[in-house]
Amino acid sequence: MWLRLDGEGTLHRQLYRALRAEVLSGRLDPGERLPSSRILAEELRLSRNTVLQAVDQLIAEGCLETRGRSGTFVMESLPADLRPADLASSNRSPARSPRELSRFATRLEEIVPSARVAWFQQPGAEIDFRYGEPAYEDLPLTTWSRLVARRAGRLSRRALSYPHVGGVAELREAIASYLGRARGVSCSPEQVLVTAGSQQAIDLAVRMLVDPGRPVVLEEPHYFGFAWSLAAIGARLVPVPVDEQGLCTSQLPRVRVARLACVTPSHQFPRGGVLPLSRRLELLEWARQRGAYILEDDYDSEFRFDVNPVAALQMLDEDGLVIYLGTTSKLLFPSLRIGWMVLPEPLVEPFQKARAVTDAGVPALEQLALADFIEGGFLERYLRRSRRRHAERREALLDALQHEFGPRARVHGEASGLHLLLALEELPADAARAFRNTCRSRGVSVYTANPLYLDPPAHTELLIGYGGLDPAAIREGVRRIRAAFESQTCS
Amino acid sequence: MWLRLDGEGTLHRQLYRALRAEVLSGRLDPGERLPSSRILAEELRLSRNTVLQAVDQLIAEGCLETRGRSGTFVMESLPADLRPADLASSNRSPARSPRELSRFATRLEEIVPSARVAWFQQPGAEIDFRYGEPAYEDLPLTTWSRLVARRAGRLSRRALSYPHVGGVAELREAIASYLGRARGVSCSPEQVLVTAGSQQAIDLAVRMLVDPGRPVVLEEPHYFGFAWSLAAIGARLVPVPVDEQGLCTSQLPRVRVARLACVTPSHQFPRGGVLPLSRRLELLEWARQRGAYILEDDYDSEFRFDVNPVAALQMLDEDGLVIYLGTTSKLLFPSLRIGWMVLPEPLVEPFQKARAVTDAGVPALEQLALADFIEGGFLERYLRRSRRRHAERREALLDALQHEFGPRARVHGEASGLHLLLALEELPADAARAFRNTCRSRGVSVYTANPLYLDPPAHTELLIGYGGLDPAAIREGVRRIRAAFESQTCS
Repeated sequence: MWLRLDGEGTLHRQLYRALRAEVLSGRLDPGERLPSSRILAEELRLSRNTVLQAVDQLIAEGCLETRGRSGTFVMESLPADLRPADLASSNRSPARSPRELSRFATRLEEIVPSARVAWFQQPGAEIDFRYGEPAYEDLPLTTWSRLVARRAGRLSRRALSYPHVGGVAELREAIASYLGRARGVSCSPEQVLVTAGSQQAIDLAVRMLVDPGRPVVLEEPHYFGFAWSLAAIGARLVPVPVDEQGLCTSQLPRVRVARLACVTPSHQFPRGGVLPLSRRLELLEWARQRGAYILEDDYDSEFRFDVNPVAALQMLDEDGLVIYLGTTSKLLFPSLRIGWMVLPEPLVEPFQKARAVTDAGVPALEQLALADFIEGGFLERYLRRSRRRHAERREALLDALQHEFGPRARVHGEASGLHLLLALEELPADAARAFRNTCRSRGVSVYTANPLYLDPPAHTELLIGYGGLDPAAIREGVRRIRAAFESQTCS
Repeated sequence: MWLRLDGEGTLHRQLYRALRAEVLSGRLDPGERLPSSRILAEELRLSRNTVLQAVDQLIAEGCLETRGRSGTFVMESLPADLRPADLASSNRSPARSPRELSRFATRLEEIVPSARVAWFQQPGAEIDFRYGEPAYEDLPLTTWSRLVARRAGRLSRRALSYPHVGGVAELREAIASYLGRARGVSCSPEQVLVTAGSQQAIDLAVRMLVDPGRPVVLEEPHYFGFAWSLAAIGARLVPVPVDEQGLCTSQLPRVRVARLACVTPSHQFPRGGVLPLSRRLELLEWARQRGAYILEDDYDSEFRFDVNPVAALQMLDEDGLVIYLGTTSKLLFPSLRIGWMVLPEPLVEPFQKARAVTDAGVPALEQLALADFIEGGFLERYLRRSRRRHAERREALLDALQHEFGPRARVHGEASGLHLLLALEELPADAARAFRNTCRSRGVSVYTANPLYLDPPAHTELLIGYGGLDPAAIREGVRRIRAAFESQTCS
């Protein structure tokens, strides 16, 4: 018997294919005895285990059979419908191609740049002003790992089985209570839906509330996660401008029937405005009159510096209009993959059903450890400490920007959050890419905010994340950005 | 000042509303000084912190202001657009109602029974033949918690940041290598997409491949997770019958352009057939000619008893037709919430983009611990041991069924998996509910398979899960089912 492996796939699979071809082509006669697996393995220089796997597969499929200790044989009667023609590529009718994907997939292809998929895995330069990540050095990891280890060491049967799709009871209670204290959110634990981060919550809300072609209000500029989910589902994006106070509610569309508005009232992303009460009320009234929902992403409102904390929009909502979102990605760290929605009562069951069909929930271990972390007061203690450190970093950044750029750069949204927006009006938008590369060659990673507009400005805007850098690195980084800026605007 | 709290929401929110109403109604004059927070707290019997939160909120919104140490005052000039009318419910224009949900949500409402949402949280009777859960007592939890604690104690910056949407590299490598060894699956780690269990994988595949109204092939009877996702997206379900060998490939639709077939070739759910080679080839050829994909759910194929293991259908696929799914819910435990897809090369990037938009990935800690668990050989050691124990349970179940029912019950799909199907032809389908209740009153939970058909049979079929019961409980349980059966069929 001459077996030729074709070099494609695992050895086990190659051998399986070769043996099968021998049997089905008739080159091995019905009833013929196969060499022992030991001999086959030696001849083919394969492990005996590989040979046994391939042979077992063919036995299971009815091509070979074992007869006790006397060995393995080709079946006397092959399954009637096993014809060599079924296997010979040359005889196959042509495949239909290209294989089509859904409209959802087709839209995604256009919306999401390939580079975004692994954005956070791409290493930044020595000084990295990336936004959207916390200060890893500040994290209370010893406490966290202790809580995780304790829960992991005593997983009950209930904690091992499918968790409730809304989240484990302990965590929903801890979140409801934390959000009441910290964000003025008023809800019962039943209204909390635990998700795998805020992007999953956004996707779920969009899917549950928006049909293709329907208009949805979006801030301009906006959080890209909103735009992605909306565009992927085929919604029509209705941009409403923002100013220094956030969404310009006077420009909300009066006529069209929008079913949803996606907003960031506590800290407009990316421009940083904090929506004042009058606009909050106007937004709620707009939604109430139109039967629209408001998706409030409260992504980093815990970090505020020179202004008093403003409670969530949800606090003002007395008509069940607001779907509130939060995430541990900014509060703790992103790989925890836990976020939450607070749902108006009538949406609780529909959203739970959607969770059951789209994803049966978040790992119980992280949920339980996070519940312990919140209930033990560790989260709020960490946030107090973290706020002080971020205030220093922010101070260093604002000083450095003032010192290096003076009036040549305008700073937006510095009052809160872990990033600010820097408008460089002397730098045309089409020079942004070259500018980024110049910064990079000087050991600094900067990120442009222009892709966050549906209708981007003509000049370059940078989104400067400072959460993860110490004051000295921040000063040095801004110095280098300035140098890159000078070389760019002079050339 | 007389404040009346209205009893709705948190105290903080109630006080906020009451104070705001005082200011906006003019009952508190512009410039008037508020009682100190200590006095307010005493008068209202609230904690001082609650009072401070409500006051801070109103300061942030421009209704109140602090003047250094002299106290808190009503703003001299309220924001111009803050009119009492904005707040008085009586003056508001009527809300539009009812608020509509999307077509997706509307379909979900019909598809998913409310009871299913918390199915696994509902306690079963003393002897519970629930299917879909592993034998918790067999789990190597000490090893698992040790691996988790070790990883939790040394989370690197990379492990804290956003994980790759496809899964962490260590786990994708471990899965690719495990699936090659155990299931004959041939893939690179790049083709592996880590998901939060198999339901998320099914939903993702359906969303990426199927548009509303398009036909999709489904086994009859079928896994409910397939049917849910397909029906929710609005697909047209094209049932193809199964027999003792699984899907009847000769009855695959010849004319219609189906883009997807959802199948369980290794262990048909729920009837247990193992698809023979000839049918596997026929299914692949059918898909190839139609430009269709095959979604292969390999949910519990690791548990096989009296037949040789059959490799996954994916092993035979040389044209990139098969999307392979697996999950730890059966292999280990459900609350781990980790599953995987093996994607044909051309689908890797589109599916990763979809992950980035729908859910930025699975927690890194569980992924890393699972990689250690697989690479350390613990998974395969556990499965060997577990298979022996399940074989005893299965033996006990088959003996008991034979002893109690003899020819009055037909057993299907007993060769593998953690459940079997029991057809009770003497028991009409419409008596199933009463029968379940009778069993329940005797301390036994049984579950009917009839909802797993698009066109259910006229008699009752039970899906008997035996993974989590010891042989004595199994024997006692079957005895009680028999007693319930007798009382039901005689009455």
